[in-house]
Amino acid sequence: MEIFYSYDASPQVCLLDQEETRHCVKVLRHRPGDGVTVIDGRGTMYRCILSDTSLSGAVCNVVEAVPGWGAHPYRLTLAVCPTKNNDRYEWFAEKATEVGVDEIVPVIGEHSERKVYKTDRLRRILLSAAKQSLKAAIPQVREPLGVRDFIEDAPEDALKLIACCFEGEVPRLSVKEALEDSAGREIIVLIGPEGDFSPEEVTAAVARGFVPVHLGSSRLRTETAALTAAEAVYFHYM
Amino acid sequence: MEIFYSYDASPQVCLLDQEETRHCVKVLRHRPGDGVTVIDGRGTMYRCILSDTSLSGAVCNVVEAVPGWGAHPYRLTLAVCPTKNNDRYEWFAEKATEVGVDEIVPVIGEHSERKVYKTDRLRRILLSAAKQSLKAAIPQVREPLGVRDFIEDAPEDALKLIACCFEGEVPRLSVKEALEDSAGREIIVLIGPEGDFSPEEVTAAVARGFVPVHLGSSRLRTETAALTAAEAVYFHYM
Repeated sequence: MEIFYSYDASPQVCLLDQEETRHCVKVLRHRPGDGVTVIDGRGTMYRCILSDTSLSGAVCNVVEAVPGWGAHPYRLTLAVCPTKNNDRYEWFAEKATEVGVDEIVPVIGEHSERKVYKTDRLRRILLSAAKQSLKAAIPQVREPLGVRDFIEDAPEDALKLIACCFEGEVPRLSVKEALEDSAGREIIVLIGPEGDFSPEEVTAAVARGFVPVHLGSSRLRTETAALTAAEAVYFHYM
Repeated sequence: MEIFYSYDASPQVCLLDQEETRHCVKVLRHRPGDGVTVIDGRGTMYRCILSDTSLSGAVCNVVEAVPGWGAHPYRLTLAVCPTKNNDRYEWFAEKATEVGVDEIVPVIGEHSERKVYKTDRLRRILLSAAKQSLKAAIPQVREPLGVRDFIEDAPEDALKLIACCFEGEVPRLSVKEALEDSAGREIIVLIGPEGDFSPEEVTAAVARGFVPVHLGSSRLRTETAALTAAEAVYFHYM
């Protein structure tokens, strides 16, 4: 099923940018009068009829708006340290989108192998993954920030989990147990780099209300841990 | 942590083949007397002292045998239709190994995009993934076979699940519900191609005791569905 993304969607009309238009008109050869499916990236799908196919930007007239298309019944933020290998982080982002995630935050920790991260490619991958999985909401990507800053800014009332490999002062719950406390709350999971979080990072997180968790007995790569967290929430709500 | 694979391991001595030896001696520069960690691929880890470092094949003297190293408390077979893109299937196999799987079977279905599959690369990826996740058991890979043959050969008493996207004559359980029946039994999950299983394949599976399941409300690519099934079992036992 072909899905198009509209940068400017309203209940009457959806506009496609040059790239989406090129794909729609030149590649897929749609003509005025064709039915097209359009998402606004924020959760609503619009069934449309193509009215203007000029390559500067197609115009689609809305026939029906479908809110919450492909939505999941929770809000999940995954704050994950970028992996040394970009492919791996991009795989995680694509798969997390298929399963269900609302926001991805690249966080830089003390033990991070990567200290910088460019989000452009990731945004394109998330758009493509959202279309492919028939979801009208594209996960947001935040600009990279330090783990300590992420911890400080985290909302008070969210269920905040920090996945770490070692047992600190506060014994870890399994992510499954910790999610029993999630009803109605936004869920945030913080996933560290291959070298794990430092004890100071965990202490700071706990002081801000983060719950230390483990992700079971398997030793998981960063990107696998991040996806496992997404799957844990998915199953909790299954 | 460096792990070496022994093709011939016993409680007294472990032999490394030329490739493992080259990596151990030439690349990592181990010398006789060094401690090395060796897996036999079948579940046991051996702490050894390197005694012979000749490049035709190193010899390691066992100090301690650790059975069930990195083991998981269930037996899981994932029978998954190969994806059009090999990377995706290899990605699934690597991640399924990290999380926990015992056997991967490439199955060819009516709607499969790929009708053949070469298992060599996959075996290398599984060995590497097992070492990286500190597991002494390397998942087995079976040679490709047709979905109908796989269904016919499936063991009677295993919990057998077939993941399909449509509602057939037998209403689907969620994979989470279906796993409640798993205690003590081998678990087999059959995952179809992007075009799903045909109604005839599902009917044949049900006749052989397969339980039709869905993997939640998200629309998942084949490789994501397969990993989601592995995660479902992992969480069931968490």
